Amino acid sequence: MIGIGKTPFGVFPDQDIRSLAVASGRKALANAQVEPSQVEAFYLGNFAGPSFVGQSHLAPFIAGPMGITGVPCTRVEAACASSGSAFFHAFSAVAAGLYDVVLVTGVEKMTSQQTPRVAEILAMAGECSTEGKAGATFPALFAMIARRHMHQYGTRREHLAAVAVKNHANGAINPDAHMKKVISLEQAMNGKPIADPLTVYDCSLVSDGAASVVLAPLERAHEFTDKPVRVLGIAQTSDFVALDRKDDITVFKAVQTASDKAYKMAGVGPKDIQFAEVHDCFTIAEIVAIEDLGFISKGQGGPYSAEGCTALKGTRPVNTSGGLKAKGHPVGATGVAQICDVALQIRGEAGERQVARHEIGLAQNLGGSGASAVVTVLTA
Amino acid sequence: MIGIGKTPFGVFPDQDIRSLAVASGRKALANAQVEPSQVEAFYLGNFAGPSFVGQSHLAPFIAGPMGITGVPCTRVEAACASSGSAFFHAFSAVAAGLYDVVLVTGVEKMTSQQTPRVAEILAMAGECSTEGKAGATFPALFAMIARRHMHQYGTRREHLAAVAVKNHANGAINPDAHMKKVISLEQAMNGKPIADPLTVYDCSLVSDGAASVVLAPLERAHEFTDKPVRVLGIAQTSDFVALDRKDDITVFKAVQTASDKAYKMAGVGPKDIQFAEVHDCFTIAEIVAIEDLGFISKGQGGPYSAEGCTALKGTRPVNTSGGLKAKGHPVGATGVAQICDVALQIRGEAGERQVARHEIGLAQNLGGSGASAVVTVLTA
Repeated sequence: MIGIGKTPFGVFPDQDIRSLAVASGRKALANAQVEPSQVEAFYLGNFAGPSFVGQSHLAPFIAGPMGITGVPCTRVEAACASSGSAFFHAFSAVAAGLYDVVLVTGVEKMTSQQTPRVAEILAMAGECSTEGKAGATFPALFAMIARRHMHQYGTRREHLAAVAVKNHANGAINPDAHMKKVISLEQAMNGKPIADPLTVYDCSLVSDGAASVVLAPLERAHEFTDKPVRVLGIAQTSDFVALDRKDDITVFKAVQTASDKAYKMAGVGPKDIQFAEVHDCFTIAEIVAIEDLGFISKGQGGPYSAEGCTALKGTRPVNTSGGLKAKGHPVGATGVAQICDVALQIRGEAGERQVARHEIGLAQNLGGSGASAVVTVLTA
Repeated sequence: MIGIGKTPFGVFPDQDIRSLAVASGRKALANAQVEPSQVEAFYLGNFAGPSFVGQSHLAPFIAGPMGITGVPCTRVEAACASSGSAFFHAFSAVAAGLYDVVLVTGVEKMTSQQTPRVAEILAMAGECSTEGKAGATFPALFAMIARRHMHQYGTRREHLAAVAVKNHANGAINPDAHMKKVISLEQAMNGKPIADPLTVYDCSLVSDGAASVVLAPLERAHEFTDKPVRVLGIAQTSDFVALDRKDDITVFKAVQTASDKAYKMAGVGPKDIQFAEVHDCFTIAEIVAIEDLGFISKGQGGPYSAEGCTALKGTRPVNTSGGLKAKGHPVGATGVAQICDVALQIRGEAGERQVARHEIGLAQNLGGSGASAVVTVLTA
C-alpha cells in the first residue's frame, strides 16, 4: 500500500456518493503521489448505492470524474464486506503481476431519502426469503447470536457494554469518527433496547463516508513512498447466508477459515498480531471476532474485553479507531477504512490513539451474519 | 473453459434468482465433470438482484446451496456488463495462477413484483442525477445514439429493422431463446414506437435466466474435457457514464479500447474473427458494436447488416443465438451467456444455427450506454 485516504465518517447532507468516493480517492492518490492516469485498474466496494441513492454502475460513475477511464473499473458487492472483498481482489491482481498501480475505494451514502428504509435495505444482506420475511433484521440476528453466546459461555451484558465503552472512548479521540462521545458503563448498560439483549449502545452507526488505498508491487513501492505498508497475508472466504444453516451461531466459520489462510500466508499466528480493527457491527460481533481470530479461546471474548485487554493501553488493542460502533459504519466503506486505520497505526500516524507496538496489525471485515469474511494481516 | 451451462431465457414465474443461478451452475459443473468441492473461487455477475428481488449478498447466497463454501465468493456489478466483468476477473485470476478451478455465473430475475419499475431500475445504470432525472431511460438514450448515427452516416430505419429481422430469425432456431418468432422486414418497420426512431422490434427483452462457465488453466483443461475452449484475448475497459461526457455518441470508446487490447493479447485482428455475439440491447447497439469492433468501418454498420453479411449464412455471422433481441436479456446473465454461445459454436454444438467457420469467435458485452465494456476472443 503506497497511499491511503479517508473522508470523515458522519452525516453529510451536502455530500453525495460520488463526491465522498472521489474525495477519498484523490486523497489516496495524492498520498501515493500517483496521477489518475497512472491507475491501471479501479476496484470499488459498495453495498447498496442503488437502494440508498438510486445509482448503480458505480465504478465507472466514480472513476470517470477522477480522471480514470480506459481501464477495468469494477464494483464488488459482498454486503458489509464489500470493500474488504474489493481490496482482496485488487491485492490479488497486483500480487499476481496483472497491474502495477491500482486504486481501491469503499463508499456508502446511507443518509438519503431512503434512510427510513435502512433496516430493510440492510436486511437484504441476510436470507430474505426466510429471515427477512420473518422480520429478522440484523439487530435481531445478532441479538440471537448474543443470547446464544450468553447461554453457551456465560457472556454477560456487562461484557457487551465494555466493548461499547471502549470503542466510544477510542472514537472520541479519532478526529474522523462519526461519534465522539465518551460513555460510561452505566450508560451502556442502560441504553434504549433495540433487540434484547442489544441496546442502542451495542449497535453500529448509520453513516456516510468513503476510504481509499493505492496498491503497487512491493518492489516498486519505494518509488512512491517512504512508508509503504505491506500486505503480509490476506484471505476472503464464504459461508451460508442463512443463520439456520450454521452448526453453531456463536462461530463465524468464514472468519476462522479466512484467518487461518491469512495467517498461513503471512507466516504468523494470532499471538503475533499486536492490534486489530475488527467488524463490530454489534458489540457481540467484536467478541465473536476476537475469538474466531484466535486472540482468545472461544467463549472468553467477553471477560477478555471487560478486563481491558483490548483497550488502547491493553495488551492487544482492538478497534483503536472507535470501530464501526463509534467511528461509524458506512457499509461499503468499512473494509477499506479498517485497512486505512491499521495502516495509520503502522505508519505511526494515529495521533492520540497511536498504540505502542504497531509493527503488525490485522483487519477483519464481515459480510451479513458471517457469509462473507475478509482477513488481512499488515506490516511495515 | 472446461464447462458451460445455461438455463433457457424467458419468463419463469416458478423460478427464483437462486434456482436459476444454481441450475446453470450445476449444468456447467457437470459439463466440466467438476465437483462443487473442487471450486476454488466463485464469481457472480448480477446487475440488480437487490432491486428486482430484494436480495443482495448474492454470491454466497447462491454458492452455499451449490455446495461451495470456504472460498472467495464475489458478486460483480457493472450494469449490463456485470457477468462479462465477472468472467474477466475470473479469467485473470486463473491465468495469473491464483486458482485452478473457478466457477463464473451470471444471473438476473427480471420478472418479479418489481417488473413495472423495470425502466427505472435499468436507468440506474445511467447517470441518474442528469439523464435519469430528465426521464432519459435507456430506450431514449439509444434513440439519441440512433438519431445521431442516422445524421452522421445516413443510417436508415431499414438498417435497424434488418438487424431485428436477422436476430429474430436466429432466435427462432435457438431452443433456449426467449422469443422464437420470425418477423418480416415490414413488421419490423412498423413496430409500435418506443423512443423514436426505435420501435418495440429494436429493443431487447425483459427476461429471466442464468449462464455459467467453469475455468481451468490451459495445461489442466484436458483433465476435464476433450473440448476445451480457450480465451485467446480479453479486456475490460471503462468510460464516462453520462452520454454528454462523450465526444461522439456514435462511438463506444470503451468497446474500441477493449477490443484493441483483446486483439493485441490474442495476436489477431478484426478480420480474423469469424463470428461474434455482440451486445444488441437495441438494434443500433449492434450496428455501433460491429463498427467499434472493426468488423466494418465507422458508419457502414447499417448497410453491412442490411446486405446480410452478419446473417447466419453471411460472411461474418453476428448473434447466431438471436442476441439480446430474441434470445433475451436477463441483464446480469448476458455476458456469460454470450461466452457460452460462442463456445457452443466453437465446440460445434450449436445445432441448427451452427456456423460453417467456427474456429475463432468473439463476445462483446456492454454496460449502460458504454461506460463498461468487456471483449473476449475465443478459440478451440
